[in-house]
Amino acid sequence: MSVPVPTGLAPGAVLGILGGGQLARMLALAAADLGIRCHVFAPEPDSPAFDVAARHTVAEYEDEAALARFADGVDVVTYEFENVPAATAAFLGQRAPLHPGARALAVTQDRLSEKSFVDGLGLAVAPFRAVDSLADLEAAVAALGRPSILKTRRFGYDGKGQIKIAPGTDLADAYEAIGRFPAILEGYVPFEREVSVVAARGLDGAFAAFDVCENEHRDHILAFTRIPANLGRGAAATAIDAARRIGEALGYVGVFAVEMFVLGDGAAERVVVNEIAPRVHNSGHWTSEGAETSQFHQHVRAVCGFPLGSPGSRGRIEMENLIGEAALRWREILGEPGAHLHLYGKRDARPGRKMGHVTRVWTDRS
Amino acid sequence: MSVPVPTGLAPGAVLGILGGGQLARMLALAAADLGIRCHVFAPEPDSPAFDVAARHTVAEYEDEAALARFADGVDVVTYEFENVPAATAAFLGQRAPLHPGARALAVTQDRLSEKSFVDGLGLAVAPFRAVDSLADLEAAVAALGRPSILKTRRFGYDGKGQIKIAPGTDLADAYEAIGRFPAILEGYVPFEREVSVVAARGLDGAFAAFDVCENEHRDHILAFTRIPANLGRGAAATAIDAARRIGEALGYVGVFAVEMFVLGDGAAERVVVNEIAPRVHNSGHWTSEGAETSQFHQHVRAVCGFPLGSPGSRGRIEMENLIGEAALRWREILGEPGAHLHLYGKRDARPGRKMGHVTRVWTDRS
Repeated sequence: MSVPVPTGLAPGAVLGILGGGQLARMLALAAADLGIRCHVFAPEPDSPAFDVAARHTVAEYEDEAALARFADGVDVVTYEFENVPAATAAFLGQRAPLHPGARALAVTQDRLSEKSFVDGLGLAVAPFRAVDSLADLEAAVAALGRPSILKTRRFGYDGKGQIKIAPGTDLADAYEAIGRFPAILEGYVPFEREVSVVAARGLDGAFAAFDVCENEHRDHILAFTRIPANLGRGAAATAIDAARRIGEALGYVGVFAVEMFVLGDGAAERVVVNEIAPRVHNSGHWTSEGAETSQFHQHVRAVCGFPLGSPGSRGRIEMENLIGEAALRWREILGEPGAHLHLYGKRDARPGRKMGHVTRVWTDRS
Repeated sequence: MSVPVPTGLAPGAVLGILGGGQLARMLALAAADLGIRCHVFAPEPDSPAFDVAARHTVAEYEDEAALARFADGVDVVTYEFENVPAATAAFLGQRAPLHPGARALAVTQDRLSEKSFVDGLGLAVAPFRAVDSLADLEAAVAALGRPSILKTRRFGYDGKGQIKIAPGTDLADAYEAIGRFPAILEGYVPFEREVSVVAARGLDGAFAAFDVCENEHRDHILAFTRIPANLGRGAAATAIDAARRIGEALGYVGVFAVEMFVLGDGAAERVVVNEIAPRVHNSGHWTSEGAETSQFHQHVRAVCGFPLGSPGSRGRIEMENLIGEAALRWREILGEPGAHLHLYGKRDARPGRKMGHVTRVWTDRS
């Protein structure tokens, strides 16, 4: 038995959020604007989202007693990360409306099912092969060539769980390096740029995409997002249409991101879908000051069954992630005209840790 | 002994806020963006700010044990309302930096000291007389004429604690009606419009004023604020200069509002100071989407000793208060392009109660 989302949620309702990191924190801040109270559920006692939520629970995602108490006290459940255990999602989904739903999680938690799903929609993806053994890997490399990329099917993010198969790479070593986990091999895509579409789908099926944004990674971590993306009108329309079709096929409710590679230029320009994130996304952080509606407000609107807001953007925008010690520049950033600082309340600026971000907006007035 | 504000507060610091209403709530939301944790102290168990604060204390403002525990756990104290008891301010000020300081509270808590202070700066105010007895009132009315307005010196807001002395008003009845409290009589100012200047002064003395805004009251409660105000350049400069001088004379740190009447037109246009609010102010709510820096972020910056942000505004702006059942229009407002809804999480939409507000921004792009 799954619980239908009531269409009648109203301000005063309680939104349950699984995960207590910066995405949950920014969701809770947006929810407050709409008069929605948040209950954050996360295992880490010092979760950044706890500081801005009406209630929080510190418990493991496998703790069914804690999950039951949580579900009984909220009107709808959402999450900030795609690796919610399937059993947790199923357990919660029987007790409260869960958005995005179990299908979005199942498809996007596994790179093989994700790629197969996107491919099945007729959208461009990199060529791929399932790899469940060294023999599979050898056959896949023979088919897709080198360079190619070996990725674990599950739990990869920010470049973790993947290894490049270069001309000289020993395949047994590579398979060992990713821990012999179920994997896929992806053919090399000679992309020029990376873009993403952050979009929302409402409970009523309405769809609203933010402007396509261009992403610059450093050390496999998002460093900058820029609006507008360097992308022709045709390719941008294709990208947004791909997001729309993905959202519809998943019966999706909430905000999601589709990361894409851009190949070629001019008339030959085209986009290839790389990854789907069933949640608010780092490449959508620019919307807090750069769009009419932020991705966080939009997600809260969607999962509560409220009308979606306008996704229109306000000008030329840059989002810069503050990774590790970059956050120590906070005072300088506060002194920078037009810069909007967001810090996540994390105590320890470890290398590679996302500590905050800055949004810079240049409107026609500035 | 008073405690100097350290110039070195940094993200991770704890901001203590006295009062738990919507102003404290919006301060806490802004503080979170800057990585500042909040501890809200208020007597009402269902205070709206509790839902978004890392910690809260439910206690009376006279509870010194609770105040001491509060002060010991925070890095700086601020407040959302000007009627903080003097003893409470003094008690806290000995244990933690208090911003705005005790002088700002003392001057603005009492209409007589406030008017005398503004008058002493050479700024235009309505003529006024102290009224401590019926005889005082009779003498004051003889001097200032009718119509005039009798106001209690303390604890008035939104039109409470004041009564108009019209040609037919019986003075003994009027004095009875305001409870025979210490009062002042203010001469009638035949104003055309009401405006306010919301401004900030930093720990380093820096000053930043938002654009002068025009306020429309209904039933003595702010109904609309609009930017730009209908005010000539000269009068606007005078208004902002008045705010600057008030801030400097108070040694003020934080955001404050100066409400003013506008008299005359064209070259004869002039402003008369009506009231000072030593806190973020309803007439500054438009800054959340309408200015580069919101008044809430600005106040947190100021009291933490951070650099002030740019107060520049983004276009033509309207803020509409949602009073009582007006908040039931939330779904319609969510569907309105360009409207930004803010609800305060109050459960009970009583008549006259501020439940939320809407900001509408028309930029050059829209």
